[in-house]
Amino acid sequence: MLVKQAACVGGGVIGGGWIARLVLNGVNVAVFDPDPEAERKISEVMANAERAFAKLTLAPRPPKGQWRLASSIAEAVDGAELIIESVPERLELKHQVYREIEAAATPDALIASSTSGYKPSDLQQGATHPGRILVAHPFNPVYLLPLVEIIGGPNAAASAIEHAMTLYADLGMKPLNVRQEIDAFIADRFLEAVWREALWLIKDGVATTEEIDDAIRYGFGLRWAQMGLFDTYRVAGGEAGMKHFFAQFGPCLSLPWTKLMDVPELTDELVDSIASQSDAQSGRYSIRELEHIRDDNLVAIIQALRGNDWGAGATLKAYEEQLYTRAHAAQTQTPTAQEDLSKPLLALETSVQPDWVDYNNHMTESRYLQVFGDCSDALFRRLGIDASYHARGLSYYTVETHIMHVDEVAGLEPIYATTQLLSADEKRIHVFHRIHHGRDHRLLASAEQMLLHVDTKAQKACPADPPILAALEPIKTAHAELPKPEAAGRHVGERK
Amino acid sequence: MLVKQAACVGGGVIGGGWIARLVLNGVNVAVFDPDPEAERKISEVMANAERAFAKLTLAPRPPKGQWRLASSIAEAVDGAELIIESVPERLELKHQVYREIEAAATPDALIASSTSGYKPSDLQQGATHPGRILVAHPFNPVYLLPLVEIIGGPNAAASAIEHAMTLYADLGMKPLNVRQEIDAFIADRFLEAVWREALWLIKDGVATTEEIDDAIRYGFGLRWAQMGLFDTYRVAGGEAGMKHFFAQFGPCLSLPWTKLMDVPELTDELVDSIASQSDAQSGRYSIRELEHIRDDNLVAIIQALRGNDWGAGATLKAYEEQLYTRAHAAQTQTPTAQEDLSKPLLALETSVQPDWVDYNNHMTESRYLQVFGDCSDALFRRLGIDASYHARGLSYYTVETHIMHVDEVAGLEPIYATTQLLSADEKRIHVFHRIHHGRDHRLLASAEQMLLHVDTKAQKACPADPPILAALEPIKTAHAELPKPEAAGRHVGERK
Repeated sequence: MLVKQAACVGGGVIGGGWIARLVLNGVNVAVFDPDPEAERKISEVMANAERAFAKLTLAPRPPKGQWRLASSIAEAVDGAELIIESVPERLELKHQVYREIEAAATPDALIASSTSGYKPSDLQQGATHPGRILVAHPFNPVYLLPLVEIIGGPNAAASAIEHAMTLYADLGMKPLNVRQEIDAFIADRFLEAVWREALWLIKDGVATTEEIDDAIRYGFGLRWAQMGLFDTYRVAGGEAGMKHFFAQFGPCLSLPWTKLMDVPELTDELVDSIASQSDAQSGRYSIRELEHIRDDNLVAIIQALRGNDWGAGATLKAYEEQLYTRAHAAQTQTPTAQEDLSKPLLALETSVQPDWVDYNNHMTESRYLQVFGDCSDALFRRLGIDASYHARGLSYYTVETHIMHVDEVAGLEPIYATTQLLSADEKRIHVFHRIHHGRDHRLLASAEQMLLHVDTKAQKACPADPPILAALEPIKTAHAELPKPEAAGRHVGERK
Repeated sequence: MLVKQAACVGGGVIGGGWIARLVLNGVNVAVFDPDPEAERKISEVMANAERAFAKLTLAPRPPKGQWRLASSIAEAVDGAELIIESVPERLELKHQVYREIEAAATPDALIASSTSGYKPSDLQQGATHPGRILVAHPFNPVYLLPLVEIIGGPNAAASAIEHAMTLYADLGMKPLNVRQEIDAFIADRFLEAVWREALWLIKDGVATTEEIDDAIRYGFGLRWAQMGLFDTYRVAGGEAGMKHFFAQFGPCLSLPWTKLMDVPELTDELVDSIASQSDAQSGRYSIRELEHIRDDNLVAIIQALRGNDWGAGATLKAYEEQLYTRAHAAQTQTPTAQEDLSKPLLALETSVQPDWVDYNNHMTESRYLQVFGDCSDALFRRLGIDASYHARGLSYYTVETHIMHVDEVAGLEPIYATTQLLSADEKRIHVFHRIHHGRDHRLLASAEQMLLHVDTKAQKACPADPPILAALEPIKTAHAELPKPEAAGRHVGERK
């Protein structure tokens, strides 16, 4: 179950990301942050998050929660079921914050730290109820990246860990329980190793920040967005498997392939050189522009993986299914849920997938027909046609399609499609589909289609089963009242 | 300019990937590999690569090159302009191979090593022409990942580096010139650092292979597929920039956040534990299935990034533009006088791609429209419409399409398509495409289309350029003699 009321202590890049993820999932959030600019900064993260979420999914999210600034930690945590601490990485500061939180919070509120490296047992020192303090370490941007590392250490209550695992999954995340506490947990150990190596490469003049970024994002970065280290090497080992991989690369462990036996000193000179290389690499973009580029790329990648039901895409898919289930449950609880057949049927809602666009970032021609085909499939499912019907050698085939293009739509934009039944008999269904833009409802394209019921073995037309025809009847009766679309019954090149 | 003839010494996972990338780009490749199973293994990599490339891009690749096994290094390198060495990582073996290569190769052939870590100056030791030996270090799968690190070291000729940078870009890759030679170059230093840290985490029982993979692919792996380390941190620093980032995370360098001060010992126990964790994680998939999952994910991610013209997607986009430009140049070099305009134009010949079919193994509806769209594109290219024409904001848009389905076709079957010009004026082209089976010539489907010439910035119709209209003229005159297709000018449901 989702929490209703949360508190965030600290509203910087990470705290702001938490606030956005919570609010977009319908949770009310009270925030304490002493920064006089906190309101502006959090509002900017919220704007980024809303922009990204609108592109990420069209699934029915609950109504947005509210967030507000509180004037003290005590006021922020009052009544909160979840309290997220994202203050700077100084242990004594965190201890002070927990003392203030515990003095005002209900004893069963979960207290989750966003720390990148302190162990829960360090954080829990001196707490009144140490068992409900744990680490929930997210990754920037918190509103888009699914991973959150959950670490309880030896003192956290098993129920607190369990509660956290459910809670973060409900927020669309992938909670990873780090079973043994360790400084920097799992992911940051890798980030720290790569970071130290990168500092050496720059210090020694081997590579610039841009060359290092390119070495990552054109190569192994693409691999790691979908498989991690070990699955990648499992595949690379080929038929001979992991052991072959070790035989080949094991000896490299003794070669001087990393500088990490030593820690680079972060001199002013090194910091200056990194900052100026980074300016040369990306100074032409504002930070806001870079945030949008990053978010658009992450959305596109996660959606691409959703198509393959894999990794972060599978997490998104599961999250959407959960949102649809909840919305459906909410709908069927309302007694009015009788469908309105006096207008075209809502066939589908989706967004223009990243691989649906041409070089102009316009939805490509053939994808329109794919969406129209999906509309017909939605109608078939509604009529009760399923795999067992097909298995009997019965199916509707499209014999004819007339498409009219009216307007363009760009990648990742939301679209929906409707279906109007023009006529139907025992063997034929004559439909008119329309694709609209999801926000401004403008018509993008229409398709008139003739679908023929066939015996697929004999490869000839035959009447559909009586239950199918019966299911068509109420739609046929209701849609007979709808005006005939202007584009129906027209041939190519016919003037209006 | 692309090379015509290459040699690959070593045809394992990496060598096989090189062979596939070369062959799919029209290069003939002679291969030497003493493995008695080399032919089968390379054929399997080729099948994977063809499958992935077919999904990656529909741009017109040159006719596939041929690959063949040679019985010796001397035979393989004979006449080759590019010689790729991908033999196991043992320096004395590589030296022996280079001696054999140099004895038989032309002195100006480029010799490129796929080594993951040996410096060019190590490899060049004892060579007759050390200046043309360099490292071109790719990433698995070589046929999909764009990155290739080009390292010449102090002895390589500047012209050899320059040649390599052009050559690999022509193969659709992102060559990164590593200016200073260093063991393991750039990318593998990071991989090695992460690998060592991962071995510690497993050895200490902190995480399993699956937990480590999840910590990567649900979090920073998604970031690194599109931005690298420094751009990511530049954005994370927020308004305060890189220096703020250093102020916050600099002190962590002195914390025990990585174990990399020490190298883990690769005991049999550790290797066994990794192998069995990896089996538990992914043993339910065969290696072939994992390869397909990986390739499908990489294709989807690269295509997603192409939509945003960013990173690996920008590389793909540039590659496709280059392929279209070359195809266009090849076409305009062929004298058109020989062509028979008294029948519909042959627009394309292809086969039904594996991902074009539905659960019945029939070519799916939307793919017909994709092929019809390719027919129109072929006509546009023939009329002289290229990227520079589009860049001026001029283009033909499809406004209307009427498809008639006549027969089914199964996956991998050959098909071809023709285009008949029904009429044309300054702004409009009215065409009739037909898709036929490639062997028995039966008609599978037809499409009547109206194409409108538009000013894409103003989003309104405008006359095409005079040279375009002039190129239309002879086709228009000749096709006026052709009988009007029965299916043209018909609306949906019209009886014959």
